[in-house]
Amino acid sequence: MRQLLDVTPIATESSDATSASALQRRTYEEVLVMGQSMPLALLRLAPSQAVSVRLDVRGEVEVSALETKQLVPLGVSLPLTQIPERVYLLARTFSDELRDRSLEVTFFNVNNRELTSYKLLLTVLQICLDVDANRDGIVDENNPHKADWKWGADGYGAILLVNSDQDIDYSDDKQDLDDYRINGLLDFKDFSFLVIRRIGPRDLPSGCELRLSVNRETSRRIRIFDELDRSSGHELIGPGRRDATIRDTEQDLVLAVEGLHYPDIDFDGLVKIDLTLSCEHEQVYKDQVMFRVAPWIMTPNTLAPKTVYICRLEDKSNRKLIEELRKIVGKAKAQLEVVPPSSNQGDRWMQDEIEIGYTQAPGKLMYVVLDSPRNRGLDDFPEERLLGPNFGLVTRESRERANKLDSFGNLEVSPPVSVNGVNYPLGRIVFGGTRPEITEDRRRMMKVVRDFLYAQQVQAPIEVFSDWLSVGHIDEFMTFVPAPTAKGFKLILTSADQSYTILKQLESDGYGKAILREGKYFSRGRKADITVSEVLDDKTLARQNRRFQEFINWNREVLKQELGLTEGDIIDLPALFEDDGEGRAETFSPDMVNMIVLGKHLVIPKPYGPKVKGECQFEAYVKRVLEPLGLICHFLDDWEPYFRGRGEVHCGTNTRRVPFAQSWWEAFV
Amino acid sequence: MRQLLDVTPIATESSDATSASALQRRTYEEVLVMGQSMPLALLRLAPSQAVSVRLDVRGEVEVSALETKQLVPLGVSLPLTQIPERVYLLARTFSDELRDRSLEVTFFNVNNRELTSYKLLLTVLQICLDVDANRDGIVDENNPHKADWKWGADGYGAILLVNSDQDIDYSDDKQDLDDYRINGLLDFKDFSFLVIRRIGPRDLPSGCELRLSVNRETSRRIRIFDELDRSSGHELIGPGRRDATIRDTEQDLVLAVEGLHYPDIDFDGLVKIDLTLSCEHEQVYKDQVMFRVAPWIMTPNTLAPKTVYICRLEDKSNRKLIEELRKIVGKAKAQLEVVPPSSNQGDRWMQDEIEIGYTQAPGKLMYVVLDSPRNRGLDDFPEERLLGPNFGLVTRESRERANKLDSFGNLEVSPPVSVNGVNYPLGRIVFGGTRPEITEDRRRMMKVVRDFLYAQQVQAPIEVFSDWLSVGHIDEFMTFVPAPTAKGFKLILTSADQSYTILKQLESDGYGKAILREGKYFSRGRKADITVSEVLDDKTLARQNRRFQEFINWNREVLKQELGLTEGDIIDLPALFEDDGEGRAETFSPDMVNMIVLGKHLVIPKPYGPKVKGECQFEAYVKRVLEPLGLICHFLDDWEPYFRGRGEVHCGTNTRRVPFAQSWWEAFV
Repeated sequence: MRQLLDVTPIATESSDATSASALQRRTYEEVLVMGQSMPLALLRLAPSQAVSVRLDVRGEVEVSALETKQLVPLGVSLPLTQIPERVYLLARTFSDELRDRSLEVTFFNVNNRELTSYKLLLTVLQICLDVDANRDGIVDENNPHKADWKWGADGYGAILLVNSDQDIDYSDDKQDLDDYRINGLLDFKDFSFLVIRRIGPRDLPSGCELRLSVNRETSRRIRIFDELDRSSGHELIGPGRRDATIRDTEQDLVLAVEGLHYPDIDFDGLVKIDLTLSCEHEQVYKDQVMFRVAPWIMTPNTLAPKTVYICRLEDKSNRKLIEELRKIVGKAKAQLEVVPPSSNQGDRWMQDEIEIGYTQAPGKLMYVVLDSPRNRGLDDFPEERLLGPNFGLVTRESRERANKLDSFGNLEVSPPVSVNGVNYPLGRIVFGGTRPEITEDRRRMMKVVRDFLYAQQVQAPIEVFSDWLSVGHIDEFMTFVPAPTAKGFKLILTSADQSYTILKQLESDGYGKAILREGKYFSRGRKADITVSEVLDDKTLARQNRRFQEFINWNREVLKQELGLTEGDIIDLPALFEDDGEGRAETFSPDMVNMIVLGKHLVIPKPYGPKVKGECQFEAYVKRVLEPLGLICHFLDDWEPYFRGRGEVHCGTNTRRVPFAQSWWEAFV
Repeated sequence: MRQLLDVTPIATESSDATSASALQRRTYEEVLVMGQSMPLALLRLAPSQAVSVRLDVRGEVEVSALETKQLVPLGVSLPLTQIPERVYLLARTFSDELRDRSLEVTFFNVNNRELTSYKLLLTVLQICLDVDANRDGIVDENNPHKADWKWGADGYGAILLVNSDQDIDYSDDKQDLDDYRINGLLDFKDFSFLVIRRIGPRDLPSGCELRLSVNRETSRRIRIFDELDRSSGHELIGPGRRDATIRDTEQDLVLAVEGLHYPDIDFDGLVKIDLTLSCEHEQVYKDQVMFRVAPWIMTPNTLAPKTVYICRLEDKSNRKLIEELRKIVGKAKAQLEVVPPSSNQGDRWMQDEIEIGYTQAPGKLMYVVLDSPRNRGLDDFPEERLLGPNFGLVTRESRERANKLDSFGNLEVSPPVSVNGVNYPLGRIVFGGTRPEITEDRRRMMKVVRDFLYAQQVQAPIEVFSDWLSVGHIDEFMTFVPAPTAKGFKLILTSADQSYTILKQLESDGYGKAILREGKYFSRGRKADITVSEVLDDKTLARQNRRFQEFINWNREVLKQELGLTEGDIIDLPALFEDDGEGRAETFSPDMVNMIVLGKHLVIPKPYGPKVKGECQFEAYVKRVLEPLGLICHFLDDWEPYFRGRGEVHCGTNTRRVPFAQSWWEAFV
């Protein structure tokens, strides 16, 4: 409640300065914010002899009773008893000149003689901080939801991209967000906008200023740039700069904003920005907007492939495989991008070093690679060959030493699912960890990576059990393939049981002498050939596989529950494991589940199963269960370059896929 | 059909150069475009003694029969009789190294002796020119509709904005599009994008180049900029530059495109851009994209007002009106922007100098003022005070001298209508002209302006008859107000008949002495007072008004037909006209139809009609017919500053309104 009596008037005029009963006319100056009521303790101004008062207004200003909201009559003398104790002033239009409005309050005594007069000169300002809260790519004008967020197609709330790409060729691996300048026009495409609308008179009244500010936490998460009418832009807000004075302009001021960090355990992705109008160091008005920093999103196997990445090995051991793979990739209408030896340092495990996802804001789409903390020969590959214009990079590392579970063969995402009425329209992230009952030599994915995955929120992660595997990657026992069903996909699991069923049937049909892994070799020239009966007679192997099958079954139940699946949604593919000598599982033969899914084309490790009439019975089985889904099985021989290195062709490749058609802010509710 | 025999091989090897029957091995080099078949006249290569041929392929290349599409068997010798005469080569994946594929054709004689061998070394390139054909603000990847256009929510086709605003402060009235540079980041926001995707090997084979080109006509309509990774951008295509070589880059090349002209009589708004790959000066591949230049769109009275513009007159004659108007504008949640005398040169007719509309592309919205060729005192106002960041300007002028019908009081737009099953979701433009049967002293709106209006296409204009009015503006006899009906609006027409009905009723009720225009004056102190009976007794006035009423009726029928209206959609407001001495109509009293419509608030010229019990009977009538529609009538005294100058408050103002919620490309079908 404004107390004019406490403020020094800008002018005082007295009819008779020596007399105590002299008529006093005091003039004050005030700033009104358009549409914002200013309270005034009217009766507190009344001198003791006053019995009536007259209010005179010049220009578009309303005077109302604070409690009843009723307009106070103007230009007529009213008994003080009829005047509400507190009134408020409201202007609905801005001033086009300074002091173009006024309120004059004149008090009279019983003789209707003027006692005191207070004149309040008013300038009405319109200030407004705006963002694209309706997500159409255009900054709105005072959207009522500009400081708010709602998910869904009928939702609202502005969105910010993490400017994690590299739109100009820096001398090093620097990303656009590392720079406190806007680096060229391509860089600028990744920014969202803030508009400061100040229409009012062309100049602010003296002593008034506009400041933009954020809290300390937010200043680490974003940068805000001004002077976009120049070629570069000047940093107003950013790490170490929490607030800034807004320069005087005659027009709406457009500012550019970039995100610096993806959501994480200590950052929910929401940033608030304040615009404050102060006059004589007193805050007159504050406006606020909010952005949500767009999450990093993974792409499931059901999305169309664009590019498959594979390393060309110096020893040319995968040369033939590359050419075979290229043909399948071409049929899937995708591209094969071959990474030369100079960029892979002999590290063939392309799946493990990175996960290619994307991020998105209205009218903006950026592929973003999540670089794992694994950091082997391919460590520099994402920075050197993926990071670029519209291809961003993010990584999470800590002092913890990476273990095998930190490789991204251990990180996948399901197709869209609905679980007990909860929709996950972008699917759910699945990664492998350990089980609570395992107490020794436990391995989990690094905490900073897990925290990052959970913080993205829109693909609520599930941690399953992969620590039972020597290599410890979930791609060794599970994958997803598209299917013409209501759910749109099937979960594929490896199954030792399924292997034994097939092998036993073969033996009972008289094919006990059929050979698995025929003609293949392990290291030091050790032949891999083994007959069906030999496998079946191996009690140790059977016992090991029973144990491993239990772990698969445990995961099966978790996945059914967390992805809302039934048995009918799951397909078992035969695979055998053997103990690595330390109680963990290693694959016995090329592991078919560890496949590349490219639309309806499946690139499956050639299993070298037992043959009947020249036909591999594992391949025959797989075709029998997958072809009815419209899938095309390509069995690719990866024995030498990948299987013998304890991986498969899936581990040796990575796939960039078309993003979801639906935006994350509309899909996720 | 490629003829290898006509081309010089890059290498020739001969087993015995002196012998006529010597084995010849010729090596050629070719470029394949990914996904594009290359025909080859295989049998034309066969030497006369040949009876069989063998095709050997290295890398991902298919060889098929041109007619049957069947794959040709590879690596086996086939009788020439089994070989299709013409085959084609197809690669579905790009080369990651130069010459990573080959086709070898070897012919044999009856003794199966090798006769001739042709080796074709192949490099497969992927080039693609891309635009945002699905209109989500993001450039697509090879959208099948990228060179096409379809209206509607399920439509496609890329969109370009005319960069008609002024994002930096040039020293003169230059617009962004006048400059062959990108002027800062704000300027860049108005551009659309083209992406040239060239993935193939990092370097093009020597002798190959990529060119971007447009036809001569298109080069006048757009500018295309490269080098966006710098701070400015370099003009590749523009007036006088029809084609340009594309620089070598390792990544997708993003180019920025701006429109220079709105659609017009000689420009349908569609621009095509070609990307050509040539090797050794021979065109190998051409890709094409299309943009539609966004039209200029007008905003009907049913859209919410944002800003009302009015001139402050040097003589202060409209000072009171401005303050009254400001209060109404405030209630309508809009703003009043007062244009100082220095910017209006005493020209008060704000409605006539400009029409404020907008243009729009996905994620881009720009207000655009159409500056009329009228060019009186307000001529510089739009350039000096409206043109700015995100506020564009367009004008049409010709050698013709402007007449009164060229003022934009003569240009309005209807709310959305449906006429005989044809939807006009953005309404129809209405402007005034003459009638065919009038042969002398005809006036029409200037042809260049009419052509411009028709060319925008989405608000199909209607030319009505306003030449019967001395001032000649349609706002003198028609307007549209929002209404809670299925159509959402009512058409308001002036009616002399309605005036006479009211006046006759008043006389028969005994109010013949009631005074119209009471207490008002014309020039030179001539009193305007006139009684109801005096008006009714004036036979000349009655005859004139019967004639003018016929013209209004003619327009009524045209508007009913062209806007699909019934009598129930029309409201008649009383108004009288008198002959200006040259057979054209002038208003007799302030003309209520010439109102400002601000949401439900109507700013109506105070009519100074005859009073009964202190109440103006014209005002009473208007309230009776308009208030049931939820409209609030504010009668504003504009006699001195506007009516006496032959206009009303509507003529003295202009309104910027919120654009249509639906985009023009989705709405218009």
